[in-house]
Amino acid sequence: MCFTDGMDRSVDSSNGSMRTGSGALLQVFRDGRPRTRAELVTETGLARSTVTQRVDALVASRLIGPVDKAVSTGGRPPALLAFHPAARVVLAADIGATHARLGVTDLAGQILTDTRDDLDIAAGPETVLSWIEDNGRKLIADAGYQPEDLIGVGVGLPGPVEHSSGRPVNPPIMPGWDGFDVQGFFTERLGVVTLVDNDVNVMALGEHFSHWSDADHLLFVKVATGIGSGLISEGRVHRGAVGAAGDLGHIAVPHGAEVMCRCGNTGCLEAIASGAAIAAALTADGAEAHGSLDVVAQARGGSVDALRRVRQAGRDIGEVLASAVNLFNPSLIVIGGSLSQAGEHLIAGVREVVYQRSLPLATEHLRIVQSRTGESAGVVGASVMVIDHLLEPSQVDAWMTEGTPAVE
Amino acid sequence: MCFTDGMDRSVDSSNGSMRTGSGALLQVFRDGRPRTRAELVTETGLARSTVTQRVDALVASRLIGPVDKAVSTGGRPPALLAFHPAARVVLAADIGATHARLGVTDLAGQILTDTRDDLDIAAGPETVLSWIEDNGRKLIADAGYQPEDLIGVGVGLPGPVEHSSGRPVNPPIMPGWDGFDVQGFFTERLGVVTLVDNDVNVMALGEHFSHWSDADHLLFVKVATGIGSGLISEGRVHRGAVGAAGDLGHIAVPHGAEVMCRCGNTGCLEAIASGAAIAAALTADGAEAHGSLDVVAQARGGSVDALRRVRQAGRDIGEVLASAVNLFNPSLIVIGGSLSQAGEHLIAGVREVVYQRSLPLATEHLRIVQSRTGESAGVVGASVMVIDHLLEPSQVDAWMTEGTPAVE
Repeated sequence: MCFTDGMDRSVDSSNGSMRTGSGALLQVFRDGRPRTRAELVTETGLARSTVTQRVDALVASRLIGPVDKAVSTGGRPPALLAFHPAARVVLAADIGATHARLGVTDLAGQILTDTRDDLDIAAGPETVLSWIEDNGRKLIADAGYQPEDLIGVGVGLPGPVEHSSGRPVNPPIMPGWDGFDVQGFFTERLGVVTLVDNDVNVMALGEHFSHWSDADHLLFVKVATGIGSGLISEGRVHRGAVGAAGDLGHIAVPHGAEVMCRCGNTGCLEAIASGAAIAAALTADGAEAHGSLDVVAQARGGSVDALRRVRQAGRDIGEVLASAVNLFNPSLIVIGGSLSQAGEHLIAGVREVVYQRSLPLATEHLRIVQSRTGESAGVVGASVMVIDHLLEPSQVDAWMTEGTPAVE
Repeated sequence: MCFTDGMDRSVDSSNGSMRTGSGALLQVFRDGRPRTRAELVTETGLARSTVTQRVDALVASRLIGPVDKAVSTGGRPPALLAFHPAARVVLAADIGATHARLGVTDLAGQILTDTRDDLDIAAGPETVLSWIEDNGRKLIADAGYQPEDLIGVGVGLPGPVEHSSGRPVNPPIMPGWDGFDVQGFFTERLGVVTLVDNDVNVMALGEHFSHWSDADHLLFVKVATGIGSGLISEGRVHRGAVGAAGDLGHIAVPHGAEVMCRCGNTGCLEAIASGAAIAAALTADGAEAHGSLDVVAQARGGSVDALRRVRQAGRDIGEVLASAVNLFNPSLIVIGGSLSQAGEHLIAGVREVVYQRSLPLATEHLRIVQSRTGESAGVVGASVMVIDHLLEPSQVDAWMTEGTPAVE
């Protein structure tokens, strides 16, 4: 069946059922392939005049633009158009407990300029967010862009965040941050959409985007001073009802020791297998260690005690991941965070227990791998979080109507 | 910005970005509200002639039809059209280990006729599926429909199923079923689309559809002879990479006893807290019990030993659910299955541990409730699984083109 009659205007995108606007057209371009207007008419089924109007709007916004000319059969060759990721930039911040990374990326998530600094999260939101703002302005200029080229800010923070409002919720290591309006801070100063999430969700997004976009169900585990995870399901972060999903650190370890955790419960994974827990154990054994990095240094230096403890931490993490595998059935587990730099011992311990303990059906095609993105995962993920949001069809349609991405 | 130019034909729905076909129009009607053609033009932004063509196709398929006349300002009143759930029927089966339930529903998931029978899953696929076919034909007639009114079959089975192919995968209590082509069986005999999933996913869908459609993240737990769960995330079943998600039964219970499980591991939840495990323990205590129903009978009869063991099973299930809450952050946990009929003791034990053990942020708004759908959850869920699939825009568009729902 083929419909040949007219369609009189852009369809209500709020209905959710119908999508024919500029935003939907931009999605066609996001595969990166250049197209002529005539090809778009064939590919989308939209009328030539409709394509012209929508393309003109996208060109005016600089989201798509001309590339090399197509081969023509004569006369002026038709213009080839393509998604133009360099049109605008995103400011992306990965804020840890004691250091911060900041990058400016294009609309394809490529880092153009970046910086890092030692920065204590406990210095409070005004200090930390001002650092992002000040350095962000410099990085945008360094990348050769104007302030008005910025379309969004993405921030990963080392604690629980209510994603819808962007406010931290009772973050244990972040005095002064509880309920702070991070979105409002940047909207007021930079005038752009700002999205905030916890650092592990953002790292999971970055890792998925950079190296594992073929994995439908990915579980990213960060093992550092603390332990946390981010779940990617069908390409999207699973945040759960209040954004608390993925908290591995305070799950009780089956067969684990009854150690008291800072959360008030006993036997939590974080109290047994985190970098902080191993450092404390090594220090008690007489080999002083102040955190994950010291543990990594001792393990790489060949300390049998450090290697043994890292391996056991891998097994303890594996006990909890075995439950996560039965529940969530991921196709890929990625182990990241500073403790994963201690060599193969951590991941070997994880594999040992997960493959022994999880259901055969769930592990048959399960891969357990080391993080590949390393220290840039958080910045890339914070950028991708913003890009995915702003380039959604409904957002782009609003943008075309209002002339600028809507600030929430 | 408003586009006023023509749109020349139905847009390629395979692109995923654009949806303007009959399927998208049907979604507009699924809220149940009747509309005139003129209202559809206003609501959707489609041209009048486009609406007429798409509506005619939907009326021809009987998916929408006329209802009461609208108030008119004079002359012949315009026809009010509405989604017509009675147009076609779905055959929905909930197959347990030792009994089967079967229903015929309309396209709104309402059960029109149903039946149940004692049926041993170990009798094999030919016997069990023939029971569905034979009784299905009778039920369709009993409901006043013709065989050609059937548009799909949904089946829940008591074991792991690869949802994409509809084949059971190494199901432990289902001899002869491993890899059996359930879809092919019904497609050959009844000529319609068939979807298969494990019984707990199907029950979770039914429970969510019937009573908790406002819950974005629901975890349904079935406690019977075995223990399993189904996760509903943003209205959809989370099946994971190979359809194995939600297997609570073989997660090791933190602080649990080291009992050998039939899966070969020790300390699994199912080996400690299932109806079968409690029945075995009661029998060993001298109070003979052959399964969940006997446990329920003893508990309801006031046996202190039975009540104590059901309560402890609730706590053990709570230990595992506490991990699931930290990982998945549901807004609602629904406890179903035959053992949940033992009164408030099971759910009281679950609540006791989950609220003590899970993160405060994750439990702040968490509700833990008893199943409301009871024994019909599986049939309703199997029907909803089929309806949700067949009424997807791309499926409806194919249907309008080919005249009948596509058999995969």
